[in-house]
Amino acid sequence: MGQLRALFTKALGEQQFSGTPKELYEPFEYILSMGGKRMRPVLLLHACEMFGEDASKALNQALAIELFHNFTLIHDDIMDRAPLRRGLPTVHDKFNSSTAILCGDAMMVFAYRYLVKTDTNLLPSLLEIFNNCAVMVCEGQQMDMNYEKMDGLNVEDYLKMIELKTATLLATSMKIGAITGGASEEDANHLYNFGKFLGISFQLKDDWLDSFGDAEKVGKLHGGDIIQNKKTFLLLEAFHIADEQSRHELNACFSDSAIDANVKVKKVLEIFSRLRIDQITLTEIEKYFNTALNYLDAVSLPPERKEILRQLANELLHRQV
Amino acid sequence: MGQLRALFTKALGEQQFSGTPKELYEPFEYILSMGGKRMRPVLLLHACEMFGEDASKALNQALAIELFHNFTLIHDDIMDRAPLRRGLPTVHDKFNSSTAILCGDAMMVFAYRYLVKTDTNLLPSLLEIFNNCAVMVCEGQQMDMNYEKMDGLNVEDYLKMIELKTATLLATSMKIGAITGGASEEDANHLYNFGKFLGISFQLKDDWLDSFGDAEKVGKLHGGDIIQNKKTFLLLEAFHIADEQSRHELNACFSDSAIDANVKVKKVLEIFSRLRIDQITLTEIEKYFNTALNYLDAVSLPPERKEILRQLANELLHRQV
Repeated sequence: MGQLRALFTKALGEQQFSGTPKELYEPFEYILSMGGKRMRPVLLLHACEMFGEDASKALNQALAIELFHNFTLIHDDIMDRAPLRRGLPTVHDKFNSSTAILCGDAMMVFAYRYLVKTDTNLLPSLLEIFNNCAVMVCEGQQMDMNYEKMDGLNVEDYLKMIELKTATLLATSMKIGAITGGASEEDANHLYNFGKFLGISFQLKDDWLDSFGDAEKVGKLHGGDIIQNKKTFLLLEAFHIADEQSRHELNACFSDSAIDANVKVKKVLEIFSRLRIDQITLTEIEKYFNTALNYLDAVSLPPERKEILRQLANELLHRQV
Repeated sequence: MGQLRALFTKALGEQQFSGTPKELYEPFEYILSMGGKRMRPVLLLHACEMFGEDASKALNQALAIELFHNFTLIHDDIMDRAPLRRGLPTVHDKFNSSTAILCGDAMMVFAYRYLVKTDTNLLPSLLEIFNNCAVMVCEGQQMDMNYEKMDGLNVEDYLKMIELKTATLLATSMKIGAITGGASEEDANHLYNFGKFLGISFQLKDDWLDSFGDAEKVGKLHGGDIIQNKKTFLLLEAFHIADEQSRHELNACFSDSAIDANVKVKKVLEIFSRLRIDQITLTEIEKYFNTALNYLDAVSLPPERKEILRQLANELLHRQV
């Protein structure tokens, strides 16, 4: 991602979020300085460049996506009562919940401010796609919260939730980049779907890494999701295909609130292994990833123009962390 | 406001906020069904009509303003830990805080959706004014929260805060109506200032009513703000002009956490009366109101076109509740 990531990082660093009252703006600097892969804005810039436009034409839209993403992190962390993000205190823990709510709100407005810094004739389509995305992200987050309290959840529900909550923003990034780069509506929609299926495969990979990643490279122990009773693809699929004995054992692990965390992780991974959840998940990831690539293939540009996105998608999927 | 209020109320009633998951959308119906004066959208429609356009041309923008206003109410109530609004449980109390955060977020996005349903050539100016307003409202709310914990606050700080937190949205409503109605930039700015100064005078009147309103007509006892230690114009002005003895007595009332509420209100009203805060506040309200009317006068339309806004402003200022 080298060059365009550098372009984006520089542009982000040059933005001033230092208004009055300072209590509202300090969290902007704080969360943006935590870093991150900046995957969405960088892919957005590539999508723009692919169609022959200079990537800098889409810089404001890339900033909009990154600010929107950070707004969702701030508000989601409040709702999830998360104390840490990237090893640092979350905004609501470092400052307070009220300021976290409010600076999230302001950050969303700033996202719109950047989004609309473009040619007037692009505004209607950019606003429509962005607004639709923003609503879907809220719907996905509400589903996620509902699912925490629900029994009998199935894999399809989960896939729909991660599509709305996370894949839609990547899809939207790709489409906004394409539109800004002058793509036809058809090509822009192909890139939207490329981003959507890529986003789903990334989330499934995240789920997989938590149980089966290289613990040394990931830098943390296996099973954080298991300890937190997260209803991931792995767990839902396990319940779906489990024989009576395995289902009984899984239920026992998750209903025993006094169980030792290490014992629980070891036991659940054992059941996952017995049910071949490792392979099943990798196959599912592959399926979504290939669907994504098919949409990239469908874009009406010569293959060499699309090679960079194919490469980046591969790199991002095969990351170890 | 008869006809245009009816137009707006009908349009609002026809909107469907009934998506999936229902947990996200139920609070939309709930807070919108609480009613309210719909002052901002109705004035917006009048501002549009004044310039010769059919008010229905600005209906989507009026809906945008009302949704934005309700989004701020939902989030402010969380931050203020308010249990009631219009005598009913607030959204976070009836549902929960997470859903209140999230449905507020979604409501802001819906506000943008309505805002941009208009001619493409109007988009840049409408988005700029709306985005600026949204940021200022957040800044005003943060100031309000800061001021709760601050000593040595002065009247100027307070006036700046209410300008940002409440008057700006009325100003923006007027300007959006004017732009949609085809007003020149100069006239649109006059109406912005009309709305701004009107909004400040309304807020000061609210402060005044709490201490000096006709308790029977207001339907509640005097002094809610005093009991809650709210730093209103009245209190800040009282501290500003108080002699040493009165200041000492005021401090005693507000630092005694064991004081009986009725005793406190009676004592503070006595001090306000001694310091002539009643008259001083009415004079200040009059000043802002007249400034507002001067801006209305400056709009380049025949007086009869502006009469309705002058009347409505008068009615709203002289309400007893």
